[in-house]
Amino acid sequence: MRIVDLIAKKRDGQSLSTDEIRWFITNYTNDTIPDYQVSALLMAILLKGMEREEIVTLTLAMAESGDMLDLSDIVDYAIDKHSSGGVGDKTSLVVLPLVASFNVPIAKMSGRGLGFSGGTLDKLEAIAGFNVNLGESQFRHLAKETGLVLAGQTKSLAPADGKLYALRDVTGTVESLPLIASSIMSKKLAAGANGIVLDVKLGHGAFMKTLDSARELATIMVQIGVDAGRDMVALLSDMNQPLGVAVGNALEVAEAVRTLQGDGPADFHAHCVDVAAYMLQLAGQGDKWADIEETRNEVEVALKSGRGFDRFRQMTEAQSGDVSQLDNLAKLPKADIIETVTATQSGYIREVLADKVGLTSLALGAGRAKKEDSIDFAVGIEVHASVGDKVETGDVLMTVHANSAASLKDAKKLIETGVTYSETQVEPLPLFYGVIEGTDV
Amino acid sequence: MRIVDLIAKKRDGQSLSTDEIRWFITNYTNDTIPDYQVSALLMAILLKGMEREEIVTLTLAMAESGDMLDLSDIVDYAIDKHSSGGVGDKTSLVVLPLVASFNVPIAKMSGRGLGFSGGTLDKLEAIAGFNVNLGESQFRHLAKETGLVLAGQTKSLAPADGKLYALRDVTGTVESLPLIASSIMSKKLAAGANGIVLDVKLGHGAFMKTLDSARELATIMVQIGVDAGRDMVALLSDMNQPLGVAVGNALEVAEAVRTLQGDGPADFHAHCVDVAAYMLQLAGQGDKWADIEETRNEVEVALKSGRGFDRFRQMTEAQSGDVSQLDNLAKLPKADIIETVTATQSGYIREVLADKVGLTSLALGAGRAKKEDSIDFAVGIEVHASVGDKVETGDVLMTVHANSAASLKDAKKLIETGVTYSETQVEPLPLFYGVIEGTDV
Repeated sequence: MRIVDLIAKKRDGQSLSTDEIRWFITNYTNDTIPDYQVSALLMAILLKGMEREEIVTLTLAMAESGDMLDLSDIVDYAIDKHSSGGVGDKTSLVVLPLVASFNVPIAKMSGRGLGFSGGTLDKLEAIAGFNVNLGESQFRHLAKETGLVLAGQTKSLAPADGKLYALRDVTGTVESLPLIASSIMSKKLAAGANGIVLDVKLGHGAFMKTLDSARELATIMVQIGVDAGRDMVALLSDMNQPLGVAVGNALEVAEAVRTLQGDGPADFHAHCVDVAAYMLQLAGQGDKWADIEETRNEVEVALKSGRGFDRFRQMTEAQSGDVSQLDNLAKLPKADIIETVTATQSGYIREVLADKVGLTSLALGAGRAKKEDSIDFAVGIEVHASVGDKVETGDVLMTVHANSAASLKDAKKLIETGVTYSETQVEPLPLFYGVIEGTDV
Repeated sequence: MRIVDLIAKKRDGQSLSTDEIRWFITNYTNDTIPDYQVSALLMAILLKGMEREEIVTLTLAMAESGDMLDLSDIVDYAIDKHSSGGVGDKTSLVVLPLVASFNVPIAKMSGRGLGFSGGTLDKLEAIAGFNVNLGESQFRHLAKETGLVLAGQTKSLAPADGKLYALRDVTGTVESLPLIASSIMSKKLAAGANGIVLDVKLGHGAFMKTLDSARELATIMVQIGVDAGRDMVALLSDMNQPLGVAVGNALEVAEAVRTLQGDGPADFHAHCVDVAAYMLQLAGQGDKWADIEETRNEVEVALKSGRGFDRFRQMTEAQSGDVSQLDNLAKLPKADIIETVTATQSGYIREVLADKVGLTSLALGAGRAKKEDSIDFAVGIEVHASVGDKVETGDVLMTVHANSAASLKDAKKLIETGVTYSETQVEPLPLFYGVIEGTDV
């Protein structure tokens, strides 16, 4: 086989065979095929597309390019979730303990990634002592013992994805739905999930800006999972404005704890209930939690009972975190400067642009622009305003938590561009735009 | 400027600005931009195309990426020709001396390239002692002194094209008209021509298989030349069957000499007259040779008079070639084995596939598949049959000149697939399909 023939085939709009795709991934992973040929193939894929079968083959080949995590000795059914990433998205911190509190075990290995604020692992590290760097035996031991463990990757999961992603990033080939879908799903399949709930965000603060593009991406990912023998659900959720109030690592841990105690912001609370209910539905395999409405009610009960928080507390203890910070949230890392941003006019909030809030969070030091960047756990923004709110000039819209006067100044300047107003009433944004189930594809 | 932004722009179907294209070529030539980004850009260009202005800018940037040959101290008007390459195409050997015999000076530097049989320089080297490796001062001296010199590149002409072509070859990005046109024209512009006659071949033995694609390529090249201030003509000529009789280096030199003596095969003779007439027309700048019919007649007279052959003989002498081989063609390199191929049935010749003849020539050793390959000047094929000829079983169709029994056997096997027959009469193929002049674009 010659890679130049595969490039020409895709360039001319033809499908690649299973053998061709597997040969390509194997030989790219082992450095036999050079980047300069792969980038031409990636551009041809971006511009000519891929059939469902090609995408599934590509994803499986990428998943199998490294270790495949086998959780079958720990759990009967491995349930996982994935969010396409958003501003203020601390959903995992809430739903994973919540689902575990239903005695559905959770053993999750995540990568770190880049972003406006940290990823789930970074957020957990805002808790003093919390250790996400577990060896594999420790990971398996805790999973068996406690039914809830969250850790960084110990294995080389989907290394082909790592290589491809780095190349796509510098060759203008990120924005391809088949490539985005296979990148995400290859890591999920390699991480050993039997069922996966995808939370596909759309709007100003998401990678997908429109409902159509988000639906298309979600559909492809559900197709991949279904064809690979997994149980799948994808939720299409709003990311025009930030999710919940807190944006920033320690701030988000505090909000997650309050939500687990039944005291979270309404939008984030509702979002978590939905994601947890769908995870339970998949994990229940259509038996125990077949009725999604009923399951939502059970999740609400669990939230109010504090069972989820107990699980979060246990996990923190098991992974050497300082539980006193959870019991007394005031003990979490705190920024030196806390200042409010107020409404510059009266009227209705037309937009709270999630991307502007996210960039502000990044500018404050809460996230990583480059892999090597370190994270400041204390800084961030609390967003008190939502689209549709009626405000008067001077009302507090946000609270900025900064660790330097300079970053505070930059942050306030940037964040002011994130709020727009309307004279007339504005409809609140929906939380969800739709659900795509395995049977829909 | 960032190359990834240029890639994204082209990927999205936008035009690149003059500054962007020049920046790209400068930084690719000096190795600042890596191949893996350029190959993605090339694929985007192939699939999204380029506007006329972009192509012209790209071509000029490539031409100016190295030395620009300045012939203004040698000639008032530098006339050049370019053939897109074909089987049996020894046109330059005839038309350049012919044009020079009208006191239109020719000072031509060529690359070598790959191909079915050798390039013009290789053919000249079939003459014992012929030296194409002239220093620049020698090149200029001969041009001034004799008005006719043909030599290999002493300068680094269009190095960006060399780098880009090598990358296109391994990334499935050869077949892009803007890239093909800019590659050819960048070298022509760098070689100092004021006027260029393009001979764009089409058919089985040419890169362009159809009249439409050849016309499109020719049009783009004429546009580039015109926009770069050059006088341009493109001829669309047939390459379904080989041009003339001889295919192979010494065989082609002999045929060129016979043609210069007015004794060439009718098709090749007519082809050379046309190319020479158009070159004179450009060189005459619309004055001396304005009427193409009249010019053709003058070229015919020159051919018959042997003036062109005198020029060829002078050039050979000036470049240390053995003129006795020209005076007695039997002294040119000769193959050990000469065998005929005969008609396997009676009827009309439907096809003499130029590509099959070309591959046979390559298999015999007359051409180069790789840069490092050496050339056997003696071997080749004489093609006596033309499309439309009426033949009887056993009639001689070709003569194969080989230097080993093994290559002879392979050649005969291959060449038999190159001839097809028809029971009913077949129209002969035209020599030309059209002309595109500078005023047409």
